Amino acid sequence: MLNFNYSVPTKILFGKHKIDLLAENIKEYGSKVLLVYGGGSIKRNGIYDTIIDIFAENNISSWELGGVKPNPRIASVKEGIKICKKQEIDLILAVGGGSTIDCAKVIGAGFYHSGDPWEIVTDSRKIEDSLPIATVLTLAATGSEMNAGAVITNLETQEKLGTGHPSMAPKFSILDPTYTFTVPEKQTAAGTADIMSHIFEVYFSKTKGAYVQNRMAESLLKTAINYGTKALAEPENYEARANLMWTASLAINGLLSSGKETEWSVHAMEHELSAFYDITHGIGLAILTPYWMEYALNDNTLDKFVEYGVNVWGIDADKDKYKIAQTAIEKTREYFSSLGIPTKLSEVGIEAEKLEKMAEQATRRGELGNFKPLSKEDVLNIYQKAL
Amino acid sequence: MLNFNYSVPTKILFGKHKIDLLAENIKEYGSKVLLVYGGGSIKRNGIYDTIIDIFAENNISSWELGGVKPNPRIASVKEGIKICKKQEIDLILAVGGGSTIDCAKVIGAGFYHSGDPWEIVTDSRKIEDSLPIATVLTLAATGSEMNAGAVITNLETQEKLGTGHPSMAPKFSILDPTYTFTVPEKQTAAGTADIMSHIFEVYFSKTKGAYVQNRMAESLLKTAINYGTKALAEPENYEARANLMWTASLAINGLLSSGKETEWSVHAMEHELSAFYDITHGIGLAILTPYWMEYALNDNTLDKFVEYGVNVWGIDADKDKYKIAQTAIEKTREYFSSLGIPTKLSEVGIEAEKLEKMAEQATRRGELGNFKPLSKEDVLNIYQKAL
Repeated sequence: MLNFNYSVPTKILFGKHKIDLLAENIKEYGSKVLLVYGGGSIKRNGIYDTIIDIFAENNISSWELGGVKPNPRIASVKEGIKICKKQEIDLILAVGGGSTIDCAKVIGAGFYHSGDPWEIVTDSRKIEDSLPIATVLTLAATGSEMNAGAVITNLETQEKLGTGHPSMAPKFSILDPTYTFTVPEKQTAAGTADIMSHIFEVYFSKTKGAYVQNRMAESLLKTAINYGTKALAEPENYEARANLMWTASLAINGLLSSGKETEWSVHAMEHELSAFYDITHGIGLAILTPYWMEYALNDNTLDKFVEYGVNVWGIDADKDKYKIAQTAIEKTREYFSSLGIPTKLSEVGIEAEKLEKMAEQATRRGELGNFKPLSKEDVLNIYQKAL
Repeated sequence: MLNFNYSVPTKILFGKHKIDLLAENIKEYGSKVLLVYGGGSIKRNGIYDTIIDIFAENNISSWELGGVKPNPRIASVKEGIKICKKQEIDLILAVGGGSTIDCAKVIGAGFYHSGDPWEIVTDSRKIEDSLPIATVLTLAATGSEMNAGAVITNLETQEKLGTGHPSMAPKFSILDPTYTFTVPEKQTAAGTADIMSHIFEVYFSKTKGAYVQNRMAESLLKTAINYGTKALAEPENYEARANLMWTASLAINGLLSSGKETEWSVHAMEHELSAFYDITHGIGLAILTPYWMEYALNDNTLDKFVEYGVNVWGIDADKDKYKIAQTAIEKTREYFSSLGIPTKLSEVGIEAEKLEKMAEQATRRGELGNFKPLSKEDVLNIYQKAL
C-alpha cells in the first residue's frame, strides 16, 4: 500500500426529501446564489420549481446559468464567472449531473483567477481558491458531487481536460435517488458504465498489498452491475437508484484510489472521443473498456484480471488463469451490451480517419497509465480494434 | 436504504514518515498543544521523542497529560481540561490508541462546558463545541481517529458511556502503520476483534436494500480476518499493519452505517464488563460476539446470517440455511480463539454474582438494538451462556 492523504470534506445529504435542508445549508455561505443547470430536464420533472420556491420562501436571491451541455464548454464557464462577479455571488448551486457540477466548479475557481479560465483547466496549479460549490444531483455517474475534480471541453481547440483543486469540492451535495427516476435509459446505462470505469481505473493497478481498497472496489463493482440492470428494468426502483447513486459518489472520492497507483488510461482515451465527436462519456468508456482490457492482459497483469474474474464475476478460481481473465473480459463486454450500449466506436459515428489524430492528442502529455502503459501506437491500436 | 447525512471532515495522513507533516498541520490551529498519551509505550518506541523534537524545531509549546488508562477515566478528562484552561491550549494532540483519543476528545468538549464534564458524557446534547483535536495513532482498533465519538469510564459510578459531537472529530490524524509494529500480541488481537465488532454492529441490521453498505462491510471484515492473523504472526509486516489500520478507521466512520438501522448491543453489553471489571474492550467483545450471534439467530434473522456465512466465510450457498448460519458463527468463534482470545467471561475474571447487576445497567436506557432487541433478561441470558 502506498502512502496517501485522504480528505473528503463534502457533506452528503442522502435520501428522499433531503431538498428540505437546502436553504439552511446555503445560508451558511450567504444568500446570493448562481443556479447552474443543463438542458431543462429539471424543469420538466419539477426540481427546478421546488428549488425556486425554496429560494423565495427563504429570501435567497438567485441568478441562472442554464443550458450547460454534456461535455461542458469553457464558454459556459466564462458566462458563469461574469454573473458571479457582477452579482457578487455567495455560492454556486449546480443542479444536474456531472457536466453541470463540473461547470459550476470551474466557474467557482475561475472567479478567483485573473486570466482566461481555460488556463486553470490546462494547469490546475494556477487555481488558488473557489467560490463555495453545492450540488443537487440528478444523475448517478461522474461522482463529481463528492470530489474536487472537473472536466471541461474547449470546442475551439478540440480539447477535453481534467482539472481540480481542494477548494472546488462541494460544501454539500443533496442526493435524492427519486430525482433519478426519470433519467432516460441511455443515460442510466451510460452512468452505470461511467461508475464502473471509475472503479476499473483504480482497481487495475500494479500496487501490491492494497487489499482493503481492492475488496471495496469489488463491492462497488458488484453493486453497479447488480443495480444498473435493475434500474433499467424498473426506473422507479428506489433501492436500485439509491445504490447506484451512493456507489457513484464513493467510486471516485478517493476511497478506492488512496494508497494505490492509478491508471486513468481509458478515461484519457475516451476524452478524445468526446472532444472530437461530443459523444456521451459513459458510452465511449463502455465501448473502449473491454478492448483496453484485452490489450492490457499479459503475463504481468494476469493475476489482477484473475482477481477481477473470481471476485466480481464469481468465476471458478480453479480454472486456467487466462481462461478466467478472458471470461471476465467477455462478461464485462456482455454486461455493457446488456445495458443497450453499442460495442463498436463506428456505431456512435467515430471515423477511422480521425483515430490517429485522437491517439496523438490522448498521449500528448506522455504515455497513459502505469498498469499497462500506453504509447500513441498502443492507443491507436485500441481505437482500431474498437472501431 | 434509509436516509442519511454523511460527513467525515478528518484529514487522514497515512503511511510511513507522515509524522513529518505534524508541525505544519498543528500550526493551522495555533502553537500551544496539550499532548495526551497513555502508559508510556510511546516513550519506549521513540514516537514521544520524535514529537518533542518536532515541537522544539517548530516553536510549538506543549503541556502533557500522560498516563491515560485503557477505558479512560473522567478523572483524566478533568485534569486535561484544567491544563487547557490554564495554558490557553490551541490544539489537543492525542498520541496513542482509542482510549487516549477519546480522553482528548472529551477534554476538548469539556473545555467549553461550564458544568461537570461527566454531564457531557451522560448527555451529548450538552456539548456545544470542542477545542481542535488531532491524533497520532499507535493502535488499530477503535476508529476514534476518524469519527466524532468517545467512550469514557466513571469508576466511582461504575459507568462506561459513549458520547460525541461533530466538533470532536479530529481535524487530522496521522496513521503510520509502522507505529503499530510494537503493539503486543494481546492488543493486536483485541484491536482486530474491536474492528470486527464495529462492523458486526452495523452489518447485522434489519434494513433492506443497503446492498453497497453490506458488500463494503464484508470487504472490511475479510480484511480484518485476513490481516489480524498475519499481524500476529509477523508483527512487522507492513501490509498487514497498514490494512488493519485503514480498515479500523473505515469501519466506524459512518461509511458502513449510513443508510442503515444499527445495532450496538454487543458494545453496550461489553461496556458493563469494562465498567465493572476494567477488562480490555476488544477481548470482552470477542467473547460476547459468538454468544450474541447464537442468541440473535432465528427465523427472522436467518437470511442475514446466511449472507454473512456465504460472503465472508465462503460457505457453500447451497447448504441448509441454518447449517450455514451456525457454521458462520462457529467460524467466528474459532477465529477469535485463533487470535489467542479467551472464549469465556470467567477466563477474564468475570463473576456470576455481578451478571444481573451488569445486565440491569446495560439496559437502563431500554432494550438494546433493533436487529434482535435485547431486554435485561436477554442480556443476562447471554452473559450466563458466555460465562
